[in-house]
Amino acid sequence: MTIRMWVRDIGLLATGSAVASAAAWIWRTRRDDRRLPILGGWPKVIVVGAGFGGLRVARGLAGVEADVLVIDRHNYHCFQPLLYQVATAGLEPEEIAYPVRRILRDIPNVRFRMTTVTGLDLEHRQLLTDVGAVPYDYLVLATGSVTNYFGHDELKERALSLKDLNGAVSLRNHLLDCFERAIGEKDLQRRAALLTFVVVGGGPTGVEFAGALAELIRLVLAHDYAGLDVKDARVVLAEAGPNLLAPFAGDLQKAALRALHQKGVEIRLASPVESFDGKTVVLSNGEALATETFVWTAGVRPSGLAAEMGLPLVRGGRVNVSPTLQVEGMDNVYAIGDLAGLEGADGRVLPMLAPVAVQQGELVAQNVQRQIEGRPLLRFTYHDKGTMATIGRNAAVCQIGNLHLTGFPAWVAWLVVHLLQLISFRNRMLVLINWIWDYLFFDRAVRLITRD
Amino acid sequence: MTIRMWVRDIGLLATGSAVASAAAWIWRTRRDDRRLPILGGWPKVIVVGAGFGGLRVARGLAGVEADVLVIDRHNYHCFQPLLYQVATAGLEPEEIAYPVRRILRDIPNVRFRMTTVTGLDLEHRQLLTDVGAVPYDYLVLATGSVTNYFGHDELKERALSLKDLNGAVSLRNHLLDCFERAIGEKDLQRRAALLTFVVVGGGPTGVEFAGALAELIRLVLAHDYAGLDVKDARVVLAEAGPNLLAPFAGDLQKAALRALHQKGVEIRLASPVESFDGKTVVLSNGEALATETFVWTAGVRPSGLAAEMGLPLVRGGRVNVSPTLQVEGMDNVYAIGDLAGLEGADGRVLPMLAPVAVQQGELVAQNVQRQIEGRPLLRFTYHDKGTMATIGRNAAVCQIGNLHLTGFPAWVAWLVVHLLQLISFRNRMLVLINWIWDYLFFDRAVRLITRD
Repeated sequence: MTIRMWVRDIGLLATGSAVASAAAWIWRTRRDDRRLPILGGWPKVIVVGAGFGGLRVARGLAGVEADVLVIDRHNYHCFQPLLYQVATAGLEPEEIAYPVRRILRDIPNVRFRMTTVTGLDLEHRQLLTDVGAVPYDYLVLATGSVTNYFGHDELKERALSLKDLNGAVSLRNHLLDCFERAIGEKDLQRRAALLTFVVVGGGPTGVEFAGALAELIRLVLAHDYAGLDVKDARVVLAEAGPNLLAPFAGDLQKAALRALHQKGVEIRLASPVESFDGKTVVLSNGEALATETFVWTAGVRPSGLAAEMGLPLVRGGRVNVSPTLQVEGMDNVYAIGDLAGLEGADGRVLPMLAPVAVQQGELVAQNVQRQIEGRPLLRFTYHDKGTMATIGRNAAVCQIGNLHLTGFPAWVAWLVVHLLQLISFRNRMLVLINWIWDYLFFDRAVRLITRD
Repeated sequence: MTIRMWVRDIGLLATGSAVASAAAWIWRTRRDDRRLPILGGWPKVIVVGAGFGGLRVARGLAGVEADVLVIDRHNYHCFQPLLYQVATAGLEPEEIAYPVRRILRDIPNVRFRMTTVTGLDLEHRQLLTDVGAVPYDYLVLATGSVTNYFGHDELKERALSLKDLNGAVSLRNHLLDCFERAIGEKDLQRRAALLTFVVVGGGPTGVEFAGALAELIRLVLAHDYAGLDVKDARVVLAEAGPNLLAPFAGDLQKAALRALHQKGVEIRLASPVESFDGKTVVLSNGEALATETFVWTAGVRPSGLAAEMGLPLVRGGRVNVSPTLQVEGMDNVYAIGDLAGLEGADGRVLPMLAPVAVQQGELVAQNVQRQIEGRPLLRFTYHDKGTMATIGRNAAVCQIGNLHLTGFPAWVAWLVVHLLQLISFRNRMLVLINWIWDYLFFDRAVRLITRD
């Protein structure tokens, strides 16, 4: 690199640093300073889970005369909607994760503990954890969901999933490793299997991941592996139902199908998986696909904690809650988000989506405060602000009430909404730089195999 | 978050994105397009190791009529001088690593393979790897160094180290986990042990890590763990020799000692480690430190590959090379960097530093080309451009010939030099944003415990 280039770089970096400094100061002056003396004798509220719902409860209780403890088995909050971009080498895992202590440390009446919940002692109002029993007056369960293999335990052993940060990084490592092994593989059948990627589940996660993977291969890896005929690589998306993106309107489902098809994804509708033995996926239509990569995004189910605790369940393993989000038959235990099985206005159980968890978290913070103050509780109503899914560069679908967007406008809407939902200005800035970089250069900078 | 804040954020992000886009385009137009047809029958050059030295050889051979193959067991190049910032939650691992294929893909006569070298068949001119034997005409060994425990194998089992990306992430996870466990620990002795961090080795790595760790604790974690008396946390730096930073001048050694002391690091000079049983570190002066954290930065030794291959070695296990960097007694095998044991003008073996590897890589690329063309080879001379080490915020030492810098000027020099040495404009920009963020906000954004 020449001196002239260095000078140019320093100029650009200086501009960037000026913008960043200004932004940082503005951000800093925004921080509320809600320091309250913590008084003994305040009611103890435990919030289990630092996902979208749990964090909203904790923030909603800021300044309330309650001693709030948030518990999670990780020390970070993970922005799950972007996990598929970590798995496809577009984002760094640290960019969509944020330390819970950092989020909560400016709220004096809220504390955090990283620990695993092992049980519930309803009688003595104690939460059991692997560091001992913790007493509560009010308990909010917001433990979210886990991958649902619908009883196929043998799939669970062999499937890769997109449900947490470690899983996404493992998937990224696996995908890149397949290419590294393929380039040295002389057996054409084994090479073809290494370059066949089967994604199961045509919901938003499966669609977004399949689209991003197809682009990673065609736009980026094709150049990295010039010695390999990457055009032979196949991304197959298998969906059990008759359509992709079941909750979306028909025109958007068709648009997503078309966009995925254009990106080279092979789509199999009405094709549930019969089996995967580690080498071959068999679909219900009899098609057999030799592959080492079987990504399961076909469903989620509520985390098993509620069942283990003996709480009353509704269909699908979700907790039976009243419209006030209290667990049926208990007045001081709440459940929200993916865990809670509340029916919406249309009589159907509310979907397992982040907006539901966020809105329920807001309500539960209010209800806990009302209960402490002896006021009547509020009933939950879900405000559906719309759904969106991205398929790749310039392609997304977006459904906001009667407004249906596809293509570039939907893609821009998706980018803006997801960027603004990230916690911390720093993460937004880093993610934005990565997105711009990848968009301009057809690059995915994070294509690293980082674990042994 | 209110709409007004969102609008403000969008404005800032738009400015940032404009700068990033401009920078990206400038960068893009800079890329050389050195596409050459690859001819059969060109001599085969294998470069083992994609560190500072190996990559320089590969780039130096761009456009030369040779078929160059770079081999590394990772698919990325790691910028080792900043590993300590990954370990102290300041940088994301992906920001100091860069895919080797991306670095080399614009050079048509250079290919890459991720594989592990298992041996060398000198007679048949074949390199043995875990994907088979690869023939070569010229071989360049640039496999660098590994942590040296000086025969203390029992320490190796229990020590944490700072020599690769996975190790740095493990160390970060461990440090943060100690704090999470300490806040739940009621036994005061066990809590004290969890909050005692022993760093062994007063070279640049040990000094930089100890300083960064002390700042992480006092400036960041003290706020995260308000319920814990973080002031009780101890960082102890033990050095076997009489001074810190042995290769630096006396005034700079004293400045570093003073700066570390001000940051709260306890320094033990002339105190080699006697033992560590997993619970207690015993120093030669008899001092016993109860701790769960034992970070070993006391030395490196050449990677064992050369010895296993039966190459001639000099003292310290480095390969015996001629001034042309050919392995003694072989005319088509070169060794460079930490692996090569060449004496400098002062009669002492050259230090194991990145600049030596880079300069030797440049020379070997020329010598391989000269050898192919039948021209006489060049002899290596090391140009010492100076050394620097950072102790923390506004504190570093810098020795460039007779120029000695300390404090803020040295710190700025350190930042600029390290930023510009990073590969890729994107990584420079992301690292810069993190540094500015942390500097302004006394923050370390990456304090995540990411592995189970």
